[in-house]
Amino acid sequence: MVCGMTYCLAMSLDDGLVFCADSRTNAGADRVSTYSKMHRFSFPRDRVLVLLSSGNLATSQAVLAQIERDLESSAEVNLKSGDYVSDIADYVGELLVKEKTKYSKPSGPDAGLDASATFILGGQIGEHAPELYMIYPEGNHITASKSQPYLQIGETKYGKPILDRIIRSDTHYVTAMTCGIVSLDSTMRSNATVGPPLECLFYARDSLEPHCRYFKLDENHPYLAKIRESWDANVRMAFDQLPNLDQVFANE
Amino acid sequence: MVCGMTYCLAMSLDDGLVFCADSRTNAGADRVSTYSKMHRFSFPRDRVLVLLSSGNLATSQAVLAQIERDLESSAEVNLKSGDYVSDIADYVGELLVKEKTKYSKPSGPDAGLDASATFILGGQIGEHAPELYMIYPEGNHITASKSQPYLQIGETKYGKPILDRIIRSDTHYVTAMTCGIVSLDSTMRSNATVGPPLECLFYARDSLEPHCRYFKLDENHPYLAKIRESWDANVRMAFDQLPNLDQVFANE
Repeated sequence: MVCGMTYCLAMSLDDGLVFCADSRTNAGADRVSTYSKMHRFSFPRDRVLVLLSSGNLATSQAVLAQIERDLESSAEVNLKSGDYVSDIADYVGELLVKEKTKYSKPSGPDAGLDASATFILGGQIGEHAPELYMIYPEGNHITASKSQPYLQIGETKYGKPILDRIIRSDTHYVTAMTCGIVSLDSTMRSNATVGPPLECLFYARDSLEPHCRYFKLDENHPYLAKIRESWDANVRMAFDQLPNLDQVFANE
Repeated sequence: MVCGMTYCLAMSLDDGLVFCADSRTNAGADRVSTYSKMHRFSFPRDRVLVLLSSGNLATSQAVLAQIERDLESSAEVNLKSGDYVSDIADYVGELLVKEKTKYSKPSGPDAGLDASATFILGGQIGEHAPELYMIYPEGNHITASKSQPYLQIGETKYGKPILDRIIRSDTHYVTAMTCGIVSLDSTMRSNATVGPPLECLFYARDSLEPHCRYFKLDENHPYLAKIRESWDANVRMAFDQLPNLDQVFANE
């Protein structure tokens, strides 16, 4: 069993949707193109869907394979059916539970195996507004909101404080993508199971285009080196300019 | 059962030891003085010991009570015995396992109860160098090192990136205490189970003084308000000055 820890996040902005993912383990196959943990499905002029996966790799790969088969066999429910992204989230949730249940035994030699996976699903169908969901291993899902415009899966905590400070629903998508990289980079620095290449994708509201802005930063990409160096120096400066603690001692 | 999530950290510096703790739940009693999750024991000219606790409150309180009783009854092993802080860590670890085991049932109605607690123990005994340990619920412990000068317990991840950037063993203790507050504050912002008052204590190497520098920041303490405001503004500025992402799009 490969259970690659990972870190993915997505944001629901006025501009559209931003997706960011690390890719320490390389896996996952999809219909249109393969972006490690970022799986993109587009059906011209009808819908664009992006799926980010974390958790048990066998489970998330099996779910992606089933999504593929259901499309090929034009199953009753598939990525092309449904009028809302939440319908697709229900569908992915069902596949997820089915797959997880196959391998989770209450007792015996394989008891305690954690075959669970978690997904983020975002996209737009026709003229409906873009939607963004986190799908739990149990199959249910929550959505982003105006006051909580981002969702995270995997190793989420290290990179949360910077998102809490910067991301609001009216944040510009370029700022949001930059913040996503900083959040991923902070996580990589503190946790060895998250690593480059980093992928970022922006889906522009109402475009129904597969990807409006996409980039991938390898370990040696000059921008990644530059942003790391710059962020490190800037945070140190931010820290050095904090009010002096001596005033607290003076009052004790 | 009260299982207060918490966040405590300690640093082993050339200057001495720094301890920081939040105190969302108010509990814990000790011999000399009560600092919510920060418990200080000092035996003039012989030893200074500081214990930070997280996890199951009943367990950590029971361990502290037993430490107290062993001191009063002059038990064979107590806080005053042993020549090294690691001896005390062994002793605390044993109390911890004993207490946890009482309430952890493999089956029955109370199965699955998590009665575990984790401690940080630091201090100095006589002429030996200051020592710092994290004591696991299983009773064993690890120490800090030159390359890993800090230890954390509880809700540790949100506040780790700033420590990774700032704390080294040659960091000045005032800088280290400031960084501890920023780390605690970042955690409070992202996680509601961690909260003020915040406590910080510095033990100066070879002083054998109970606390060389100590302060407590309540929710309304002007310095806490000031550092929050300043850190928020400075981090935003640090973020705004990052290299422009447009250069990446240009190359795609």
